Amino acid sequence: MCPPGRVASRGRTRRSAPTATVLMREISNNGEWTVMDKLFLPVLLGTNRQNRNSVHPARWLIGQMQQRAEIETRLFDVGEFALPQHDYGQALKDQFPEWRDAIIRADGLVIVTPEYNHGYPGTLKAVLDLLLREYVHKAVALVGVSAGPWGGTRVIEAMVHMVRELGLAVTFSDLNFPKVQNTFDAEGKLLDPAFEKRAKDFLDELVWMATTLKWGRENVPSKFH
Amino acid sequence: MCPPGRVASRGRTRRSAPTATVLMREISNNGEWTVMDKLFLPVLLGTNRQNRNSVHPARWLIGQMQQRAEIETRLFDVGEFALPQHDYGQALKDQFPEWRDAIIRADGLVIVTPEYNHGYPGTLKAVLDLLLREYVHKAVALVGVSAGPWGGTRVIEAMVHMVRELGLAVTFSDLNFPKVQNTFDAEGKLLDPAFEKRAKDFLDELVWMATTLKWGRENVPSKFH
Amino acid sequence: MCPPGRVASRGRTRRSAPTATVLMREISNNGEWTVMDKLFLPVLLGTNRQNRNSVHPARWLIGQMQQRAEIETRLFDVGEFALPQHDYGQALKDQFPEWRDAIIRADGLVIVTPEYNHGYPGTLKAVLDLLLREYVHKAVALVGVSAGPWGGTRVIEAMVHMVRELGLAVTFSDLNFPKVQNTFDAEGKLLDPAFEKRAKDFLDELVWMATTLKWGRENVPSKFH
Amino acid sequence: MCPPGRVASRGRTRRSAPTATVLMREISNNGEWTVMDKLFLPVLLGTNRQNRNSVHPARWLIGQMQQRAEIETRLFDVGEFALPQHDYGQALKDQFPEWRDAIIRADGLVIVTPEYNHGYPGTLKAVLDLLLREYVHKAVALVGVSAGPWGGTRVIEAMVHMVRELGLAVTFSDLNFPKVQNTFDAEGKLLDPAFEKRAKDFLDELVWMATTLKWGRENVPSKFH
Repeated sequence: MCPPGRVASRGRTRRSAPTATVLMREISNNGEWTVMDKLFLPVLLGTNRQNRNSVHPARWLIGQMQQRAEIETRLFDVGEFALPQHDYGQALKDQFPEWRDAIIRADGLVIVTPEYNHGYPGTLKAVLDLLLREYVHKAVALVGVSAGPWGGTRVIEAMVHMVRELGLAVTFSDLNFPKVQNTFDAEGKLLDPAFEKRAKDFLDELVWMATTLKWGRENVPSKFH
Repeated sequence: MCPPGRVASRGRTRRSAPTATVLMREISNNGEWTVMDKLFLPVLLGTNRQNRNSVHPARWLIGQMQQRAEIETRLFDVGEFALPQHDYGQALKDQFPEWRDAIIRADGLVIVTPEYNHGYPGTLKAVLDLLLREYVHKAVALVGVSAGPWGGTRVIEAMVHMVRELGLAVTFSDLNFPKVQNTFDAEGKLLDPAFEKRAKDFLDELVWMATTLKWGRENVPSKFH
Repeated sequence: MCPPGRVASRGRTRRSAPTATVLMREISNNGEWTVMDKLFLPVLLGTNRQNRNSVHPARWLIGQMQQRAEIETRLFDVGEFALPQHDYGQALKDQFPEWRDAIIRADGLVIVTPEYNHGYPGTLKAVLDLLLREYVHKAVALVGVSAGPWGGTRVIEAMVHMVRELGLAVTFSDLNFPKVQNTFDAEGKLLDPAFEKRAKDFLDELVWMATTLKWGRENVPSKFH
Repeated sequence: MCPPGRVASRGRTRRSAPTATVLMREISNNGEWTVMDKLFLPVLLGTNRQNRNSVHPARWLIGQMQQRAEIETRLFDVGEFALPQHDYGQALKDQFPEWRDAIIRADGLVIVTPEYNHGYPGTLKAVLDLLLREYVHKAVALVGVSAGPWGGTRVIEAMVHMVRELGLAVTFSDLNFPKVQNTFDAEGKLLDPAFEKRAKDFLDELVWMATTLKWGRENVPSKFH
């Protein structure tokens, strides 16, 4: 008799050999291949400023993610959240069911944000503060964007404390877009191909962390899930 | 003939002896007393959450400030800012002329804020990001509020980076309200008299910094003013 | 026939039923119980100051850890590192082989440190900077100690950035010892039993993270291991 | 009769007209020129690593400072501090009388440091933690150095909290040296003249803050001096 509790127990079965990429998350089961569900890793664009340049790296990264068999993604835009003037926080979570349900289902999150005065945009923080328990033991990877030379390094440092308290486990491989106005053209086309390798490394690490934490959520007891 | 350039040159004249507190910032002028303008130090309440407990320390601190002859203050409440959904930052500053003009006139600022997920409320950040040059070389003092035992120490750490980039000089004497729900009653009456001495030390340091920077803005050349 | 690739494949076999605690990390194998290796989680005491009070929580926590079947630990003391005056960093790692080999073998780390001027002790940073690759994809949990009321919350915030860059994944359940001089007697006996539950929660989360990351290191490909 | 309490009352008298630069801090006294003492602004080099590249920007900046009439400086090097293995902090301050007396006399401080794992070198922190009261209400300006592209932005963020708690008022105009190995040749000659203007702006702001705080220490009462 085979033991219960295997990692891939929620997987579906298929017969053809997987690609190398997908092999990573597969474990054979009685001679069949079982495939874990794709990782669901939404991208959150962190600014609602008019003419925000961060939309270009966010959309471009979505494109990179969609090329990977193991990732399912979609874009959330903080500018689409009609945040109320007179309340804040988790009390509002059911007013944003799409966001709430996406994070409940998510295995991780990518945050793409400009740096405003060495910190995060207020709108980004307001959106993140809508939820709490929903984030616990999931992965987050951080993308900093700036008009100047430092690539949002400081907003990333600022976010690290906040996402930790949300219960997210942050990767240590960031993606930084300095001088973003020179890195994409007006239509959002990437002008510097060096970012392709950087995005690959960034996503590899996010996939590692999200895969690992998913196993943990499903297999290691915790009072949080 | 007396030299030009004295510190108190913008003061008004009065004949009665000043109180000890006010003496600090007075310099006699030809046998008359000249009094520098009061320091204008508005208080910004940093949360728009329903039933926010931070309103109690903010109002109580306003009361403490109003008892000091050298301080003029008023309360700004981030919940009164009708921030737009689809824009952000300095482009909006003329939509909030009271705030803009207060900071232009201010010698410093007090920020009273709860800690949300180890960071600042998004609404607070959105209000602060409305301005920039207006803050430069003015003082800021930070008040952290929490329901738990740590008194908002982490939101203060988070704000330090941001207010520095705004050009504000932050004092090193914070005021922390842990377990705020036990420190004030439902009407906002302070239950723990130990905060009176703490507020005095906090305000003494803010007055020192604001007085000093005011002299600097008026007497030491800078490309910023 | 049962599939290969199970999590506990490196475990040893025993026949008796495990305790509830150990069950967490066990997966049965052909009717036998296989037990994963214990998690090795050294504790690093972060200060070399004379009369450092942090030694008491560090030793007490070691005691708590030794009572858990799934943890192996030992104390490292930054005061025992004879750091040279004229060099720094990874170039020195082979001068401290015990530390190096412990971190190579470790599944995670606990850092117990006082807060000095809102930051980490220099000696702690110098010891941590001796290694780099050795930390990657392991867990770290943070214990803050202070003489004042805030329990080292600020040194924890300061460490979060640094341990992330080391490749460590930090838990979000800290342990804070405010007014440490009142929490332990002169012999290091704990005076406040509330810390027993806090330490349990702190260690539960560290065990969760270390167990999960261990599985990831062994099962999910990465360029880092 | 002229009033007492003028700003420049501690200055010395000279007859020749001052240069434009020095005029900034001069106030005429009965038709004579009085000159305030030069600002004493030591530079602290923050790493003791072998082959540290930070020595080049530190020495180059000293050269820039020595060209300014209003600045007196000297270099301190953390590698010259024989820090003991078994103690730490203010208890040691009298073992380093040159450092202690320099900070007592200083009007401000420049810290030049590499970024090690997103934080400050341990040796730098150990040197700074030797003193406390001696720093209060003086200025500090921060120089970040890195081998990579981000110019030490993260070590600057890390230092901001710590220098604030020391009582130093940090300027908001940093100097960042990314890819330092390409910015100076092996003899320490600057290869990129753009840094001359950047250093001027950096020093202008430090002089503004140090001049302003010096006036405050001498003229505005505080329990700290």
